[in-house]
Amino acid sequence: MSAYAPPLRDLRFVLDELLAVPALLQRCGRGELDADTIDQVLEGAGRFAAEVIAPLNAGGDRQGCSMPRPGEVRTPDGFPDAYRSFVDAGWTGLGCSTDFGGQALPLAIGSAVNEMLSGANMAWAAYPGMSHAAYLCIEANGSDAQKALYLPRIASGDWAGTMCLTEPHCGTDLGLLRTRALAAADGSYRITGSKIFISGGEQDLTGNIVHLVLARLEDAPPGVKGISLFVVPKRLPDAEGQPGARNPVHCSGIEQKMGIHGNATCTLDFDAATGWLLGQPNQGLAAMFVMMNHARVAVGVNAVGLMEAARQKSLAYAREREQGRAAVRIGGAADPIIAHADVRRMLLTQKAWVEGARALALWATTLIDSQHLDPDAAERHRAGQLLAIATPVVKAFCSDLAVESIGLAMQCFGGHGYIRDNGVEQHLRDARIIPLYEGTNGVQAMDLLDRKVIADGGRGLDVLLGCIDDWVASQAQVPALREFCLPLSALAAELRAVTAAVLAESETDPQAIGAAAAPYLRLVGHLLLAWMWARMAALSIDRIARDGGEPIHAAKLATARFYVERLLPEVQARCAEIRAGAASLTALPAELF
Amino acid sequence: MSAYAPPLRDLRFVLDELLAVPALLQRCGRGELDADTIDQVLEGAGRFAAEVIAPLNAGGDRQGCSMPRPGEVRTPDGFPDAYRSFVDAGWTGLGCSTDFGGQALPLAIGSAVNEMLSGANMAWAAYPGMSHAAYLCIEANGSDAQKALYLPRIASGDWAGTMCLTEPHCGTDLGLLRTRALAAADGSYRITGSKIFISGGEQDLTGNIVHLVLARLEDAPPGVKGISLFVVPKRLPDAEGQPGARNPVHCSGIEQKMGIHGNATCTLDFDAATGWLLGQPNQGLAAMFVMMNHARVAVGVNAVGLMEAARQKSLAYAREREQGRAAVRIGGAADPIIAHADVRRMLLTQKAWVEGARALALWATTLIDSQHLDPDAAERHRAGQLLAIATPVVKAFCSDLAVESIGLAMQCFGGHGYIRDNGVEQHLRDARIIPLYEGTNGVQAMDLLDRKVIADGGRGLDVLLGCIDDWVASQAQVPALREFCLPLSALAAELRAVTAAVLAESETDPQAIGAAAAPYLRLVGHLLLAWMWARMAALSIDRIARDGGEPIHAAKLATARFYVERLLPEVQARCAEIRAGAASLTALPAELF
Repeated sequence: MSAYAPPLRDLRFVLDELLAVPALLQRCGRGELDADTIDQVLEGAGRFAAEVIAPLNAGGDRQGCSMPRPGEVRTPDGFPDAYRSFVDAGWTGLGCSTDFGGQALPLAIGSAVNEMLSGANMAWAAYPGMSHAAYLCIEANGSDAQKALYLPRIASGDWAGTMCLTEPHCGTDLGLLRTRALAAADGSYRITGSKIFISGGEQDLTGNIVHLVLARLEDAPPGVKGISLFVVPKRLPDAEGQPGARNPVHCSGIEQKMGIHGNATCTLDFDAATGWLLGQPNQGLAAMFVMMNHARVAVGVNAVGLMEAARQKSLAYAREREQGRAAVRIGGAADPIIAHADVRRMLLTQKAWVEGARALALWATTLIDSQHLDPDAAERHRAGQLLAIATPVVKAFCSDLAVESIGLAMQCFGGHGYIRDNGVEQHLRDARIIPLYEGTNGVQAMDLLDRKVIADGGRGLDVLLGCIDDWVASQAQVPALREFCLPLSALAAELRAVTAAVLAESETDPQAIGAAAAPYLRLVGHLLLAWMWARMAALSIDRIARDGGEPIHAAKLATARFYVERLLPEVQARCAEIRAGAASLTALPAELF
Repeated sequence: MSAYAPPLRDLRFVLDELLAVPALLQRCGRGELDADTIDQVLEGAGRFAAEVIAPLNAGGDRQGCSMPRPGEVRTPDGFPDAYRSFVDAGWTGLGCSTDFGGQALPLAIGSAVNEMLSGANMAWAAYPGMSHAAYLCIEANGSDAQKALYLPRIASGDWAGTMCLTEPHCGTDLGLLRTRALAAADGSYRITGSKIFISGGEQDLTGNIVHLVLARLEDAPPGVKGISLFVVPKRLPDAEGQPGARNPVHCSGIEQKMGIHGNATCTLDFDAATGWLLGQPNQGLAAMFVMMNHARVAVGVNAVGLMEAARQKSLAYAREREQGRAAVRIGGAADPIIAHADVRRMLLTQKAWVEGARALALWATTLIDSQHLDPDAAERHRAGQLLAIATPVVKAFCSDLAVESIGLAMQCFGGHGYIRDNGVEQHLRDARIIPLYEGTNGVQAMDLLDRKVIADGGRGLDVLLGCIDDWVASQAQVPALREFCLPLSALAAELRAVTAAVLAESETDPQAIGAAAAPYLRLVGHLLLAWMWARMAALSIDRIARDGGEPIHAAKLATARFYVERLLPEVQARCAEIRAGAASLTALPAELF
């Protein structure tokens, strides 16, 4: 099995050349983070990913998590030590505020780091990843005292965090949740209920765990308007902020899952556990969604990491495995299978998906950075509008591409792809969670079309399409770009047309939006990918014209062409699917399925 | 987890109404196999599948196979008893000749049985499945003495069979194989070499195992022209045909795989093991391919079984799980998720894929039956031509659809789909082998386009397209069928056009065929599926007009419409991909991937 190689060159290409992150940071008053500094961070993280956690990936999958005693969870061998090294090197504070002991690195850089961590060991990476999500949630919603108590301890990695949303009877529909919070005389609450699917709900990595829990206050209105958010530490902090008395929140089981075996997915029972309100009463869902939107972009980043890892394995195998005679020979008795056109198709498809998805996901992280850091309010607003559209697309499109792409990596291996030791099958099992969690991809599609496009009156979409139009116009003087710009403009026009068609249909058929949502998201995904690839092609053409460019520029140009010629045509099918309308979807009575 | 329900009604629809198997058998002199008799077989097999082996499926996956002692393999608890029941009920002889103690049921019926066995427990079903493949290979290639010795014992289920092709350094490219056969003085051979990926290579189900082994004779020509086929029993039959002395062929390991854990995938070491030539020297590959072509169709049938099983689980869940408010309400506080348009999309897509694939795979099995049984030589020839095209399509298209379809079943479950106890994740892991084995789907695509279409001068394809044209012409008087016939005819015309385009390109670019192969196979797959759905729609329209039909006829019509409107448009993308040609695929040097 080939080792994980941090894709530093491509990350640099995307951050420095494509997204001009150093210039963006300069504009946002973070000019000290120049390309060299970013490089050093990426190199250090890449080393950690490749040398410390990648070697634990296969073993963690085999061993999984266990419960040596009731309520206690043991992570796989090596996980706690790796976590300790991670903490000691200060990585947990990378994206945390300097006010709380962090390094305040912008999300674009932190996400490049996270891509490598997930690619090297997705199960392990989810522990600090979830803690950081909890950090962001407390930072956005906590009182000063709560921030002062929890944030430095999470930023340092001494304490972990979780997000406790799902209950056995509700996941997507949190309005149904039943966990209760009773007010106590001292201003705290007693939380009672059962939560499932809690990533890192119990573990042996940290001295304390800060659970962020959705629950209902007494007399709360029914549905989503009656949900509040609470902070419920596993051990109650004492006066010095040290982990004190054990709170009655216990792990009653860990899920047996398809993959990410090294990450403990816990059932947590809250039995009048002490918690404190985080943010306003009955505003819990909105408070949680600050974090959820970041998490959805992060899922896209994880997807890229896994695709990259699988792609590397299949590429190494395709260069080394000799089998059959290709139409154009390059081997001896048999050719390396990379010589076969159909294997090239599978490798290039992976390359186009992973590099396109990397550009797309990191672009979305720069929008989050702009939204927070840009000195210009109009620019912050514009970034927020683009981000609203981008978030569900990054989550769903990148995760679907990951499953498809890793499936192709497996096909390159033939039967050997099915064997555990070759590692690709683990990537596929690990990746299969990403289209499911943080809102299924079906939920993302509805979020995009129903909320981000239709309910928004198409304003955000217009901003996006305007950006693309402007960019295309800016390239009008480059004839070599026409092969990329023409299909991009055609797709933008087609998207405007199908959006209008769905809107018109929805006026008479309430199912129209749901019927169109999934192919619509895929269409917007391709629009963004086609834009990213056109921009990467433009950069590469420019560099090649200037000084011949580096090998990566030739590769980008060839891959952009492959994407446009062979993958982008999928949009024709999706448009036809949308235009078919809801009728064929709604005609069959439920009992005849 | 919902139980496996044998899809008897749909199997009857396909066998009796769509493919008119009773009439076909009447014509072939097997009129005793009327619809009622077929029904009884299916019901009995369905009971066995649902009651005996489906309950062993999850446990078999968890426990897997083990090697309690070197060379010995233990299958999961319950597998040996279930095998004994299967043997006692005579199921192993279903498709075997009456000359050797079988019941000589045509393949179409046997395949319907196999679909249910694979759907209920793919790992278990592969043991008798592989034995039957070996049976067919000996029947086609063995001497009378070999047939008399081995076939009754395999037909009875007392002995099992295996196919030993793959070696560590060669799978697709069998020309590279190294296992050697030295002639002994008594006419037998001493076989030496190592084989991998041998399904059922060792087990605890049968008293003997008959290995069919590809090896090279001394002085054999290099490459595929120097491969011979040998029969190598685990225990050498004594004079009475009883398992006697242990032959030096030993299982040195079992693979740890992504799925089908209950099926032992063995490494077999042949250490001067005694074997006998099966068929002619150096003709081993052709001898093996008699069986391989059947096996490829059988893989399509297995795919249908797994899709059906996963579809049933997701449908049961979608009817019962209440979450969110649908655009058209059918529930209380929340609606069953089947009310949501996007969930309907996922359920209907599965329904269209699985029922279409069932029709397609069983149609291919009727071609095999016709090829063997039809009294008219011209008809036998025509069936063979259609089968040559259908075989790689059934193998690859159905197996790809299975992975896609089971992925959708998982999405219907949300996060619960990732949990082992819900069963869908096992189906997905089990199904992931089918695009890989019996020739990867990439190999199937090359077989279709390069050998079955181009090298054949398009004759077989013309026969197929002629059948479709004739069928469409025969329906010209049914206006209600136009919505199905027009896109079918358009696709047939488009297929003719892209075939010509690839042929033209291949005259100047040797990579053209490989570059087009994968999307081309998918295009032919849709052509066949569109034909099957149009025929199912025609039947249903006819029945509904006659007597109102049964619920299945309304469902078929609605599903056919869904397929044509929402899934068939994929062909536009595939055509564009083919027409893009090889250039973008071959431009990037291997070192820049």
